[in-house]
Amino acid sequence: MATSPTLAPSWTTTEWLNTPEPLSLERLRGRVVLVHAFQMLCPGCVSRGIPQAQRVAELFAGARLSVIGLHTVFEHHRAMQIDSLRAFLYEYRVRFPVGVDAPDPSGGPIPQTMRAYAMQGTPTTILIDAKGRLRRQVFGAHDDLVLGAELQTLLLEAESGSEERAETTAQADGCDEGGCAPATTGRAS
Amino acid sequence: MATSPTLAPSWTTTEWLNTPEPLSLERLRGRVVLVHAFQMLCPGCVSRGIPQAQRVAELFAGARLSVIGLHTVFEHHRAMQIDSLRAFLYEYRVRFPVGVDAPDPSGGPIPQTMRAYAMQGTPTTILIDAKGRLRRQVFGAHDDLVLGAELQTLLLEAESGSEERAETTAQADGCDEGGCAPATTGRAS
Amino acid sequence: MATSPTLAPSWTTTEWLNTPEPLSLERLRGRVVLVHAFQMLCPGCVSRGIPQAQRVAELFAGARLSVIGLHTVFEHHRAMQIDSLRAFLYEYRVRFPVGVDAPDPSGGPIPQTMRAYAMQGTPTTILIDAKGRLRRQVFGAHDDLVLGAELQTLLLEAESGSEERAETTAQADGCDEGGCAPATTGRAS
Amino acid sequence: MATSPTLAPSWTTTEWLNTPEPLSLERLRGRVVLVHAFQMLCPGCVSRGIPQAQRVAELFAGARLSVIGLHTVFEHHRAMQIDSLRAFLYEYRVRFPVGVDAPDPSGGPIPQTMRAYAMQGTPTTILIDAKGRLRRQVFGAHDDLVLGAELQTLLLEAESGSEERAETTAQADGCDEGGCAPATTGRAS
Repeated sequence: MATSPTLAPSWTTTEWLNTPEPLSLERLRGRVVLVHAFQMLCPGCVSRGIPQAQRVAELFAGARLSVIGLHTVFEHHRAMQIDSLRAFLYEYRVRFPVGVDAPDPSGGPIPQTMRAYAMQGTPTTILIDAKGRLRRQVFGAHDDLVLGAELQTLLLEAESGSEERAETTAQADGCDEGGCAPATTGRAS
Repeated sequence: MATSPTLAPSWTTTEWLNTPEPLSLERLRGRVVLVHAFQMLCPGCVSRGIPQAQRVAELFAGARLSVIGLHTVFEHHRAMQIDSLRAFLYEYRVRFPVGVDAPDPSGGPIPQTMRAYAMQGTPTTILIDAKGRLRRQVFGAHDDLVLGAELQTLLLEAESGSEERAETTAQADGCDEGGCAPATTGRAS
Repeated sequence: MATSPTLAPSWTTTEWLNTPEPLSLERLRGRVVLVHAFQMLCPGCVSRGIPQAQRVAELFAGARLSVIGLHTVFEHHRAMQIDSLRAFLYEYRVRFPVGVDAPDPSGGPIPQTMRAYAMQGTPTTILIDAKGRLRRQVFGAHDDLVLGAELQTLLLEAESGSEERAETTAQADGCDEGGCAPATTGRAS
Repeated sequence: MATSPTLAPSWTTTEWLNTPEPLSLERLRGRVVLVHAFQMLCPGCVSRGIPQAQRVAELFAGARLSVIGLHTVFEHHRAMQIDSLRAFLYEYRVRFPVGVDAPDPSGGPIPQTMRAYAMQGTPTTILIDAKGRLRRQVFGAHDDLVLGAELQTLLLEAESGSEERAETTAQADGCDEGGCAPATTGRAS
């Protein structure tokens, strides 16, 4: 994984499904985040990527990890509107929160978050550590054994750094200029 | 397969994709027809049914057989409009003709052709012989070995009965009040 | 399938498993025969060929069809002796009769039946019609849809020719100079 | 994984394949060890367990990890002798070292190492940490995501504990009464 990682770009979204309120990287600080960027009509996402993200969500249910879907539509925009996505998530039993990537304001096909991460396409798997840093980004199918190892690295880091982090957040009361991030919010997913 | 089969019900459709003009059982008379009734957001159709229909279309490409998709939407109607279906067929590389089952005029969820065949759900595989008779209808996954055997039975029947059929169609010149059905039209698929 | 087929070569075997007595093509005359030639340490046989032969045996259990295994060892001879084969069949739940191809008397690696059919390797699927003629021989993985269609062709031929065959066998009482082949023996599998 | 682990039992073997010389836990000290206990005629080992062990060996090739096969025959003993095992490893392209578990001297069916670990059957996956402690033992199929996470935990422990360990081994010069365990020997696999 990346050795001198920088903060992961923020997500720019228009809607959220499977969560009572919008999520952001700031609100998830303190948790490891796996982002599965997909399109509902992308065969590789449906057959491989989404099932993998679902199994991560189930198998690591007790861990300090949030699995987040990001619907990054860059083709067939009319075919993948919110009604279709909602039905898709229902039929494929996707339970984790899914944000809808915001369209390019200048009318281009690539949505904003997809561009911010310079994703090559879908599916893309993104790993963000508990400090909000972008640690891994993989386009295409990703091996379960390797993904399991990568997640565990970030989870162990998050655990070992928790006292240190507790001090920091205590100082700021879990809030900063952008808003508040109580430790509990991350458990929404 | 059915021993005293009756004529298969007509299809009532609103649109056709992957074909220059609408298809009907009458136009396909003389050919064996495999109908794959599906919904684009039905996981079992996407993972099993459609790939099977695609392989039939490829492996029996030289045979007197037409593979026809029928989009029988009975739930999430707004999610599976024509734009979404068109993109779906493109992304999943479905090349065979697909008709869109016509909605219930009285506003119920079950479309007309689905009701006419009393289908239980999707995927449903329907086999119609060269004389237009309904010979087999299976709800759910259908075994390749059995399907191959069933198709071959109908294809061999179609071959052995071809002289007899030629006489009948010669009488009517391949036309009836609804239109003409030259032997070549069936090759559209 | 082959258009001017000749009689399938006889099998030369040293032992039989899963059957009370040795089988031969002569004894199976009147039935369609699927021969699955395999080696117990051939990965493609274990993962694809044998499971396919097992499904044929189950799905066509009521048909006039016999599924026969033929252990054609042409490498690692000491590794695949009869004790190992017997345990293999037990563990993989292979229930159909399996004959052991007889070794080359001049000491070469290719066993006799394998050579008689000029097999290229394992797995090989061989289809023999009810009249004992070799109709199809495929080296490597064979598609279920195509295999189902081929089996059905031979089964329908066997059915349509049954009166004719009945006359012939009645005349000879099911016996010929080589021995007797009562209609019931074929049902052993 | 186990919280107060004890040292893993020694292996008692009669032969080794795919390695120039016999291996032991003592010789592998300092490396994480994955033991895949299998029987060559166990279907679940062949279809799931061995392929998983092979992928671990490939994907973690650069890590301080040794994948070791253990042939724990407890049934069909005559069917799985060394010649058969050797051919099996060759045909299935198993490249990691495989030890043959030693038979029970009192003539029982369960071999010695299998009994020492109280294994329930095959396949069994065993994880041993760099200090030789038994940390995890799973009977049956084991999930890739979980296995990846478990391996990474032990690998990170091995890394972080290496200075401490270096001190200890420096004191004893890497040797003890039972023999010597130079750091290089672990690389044999």
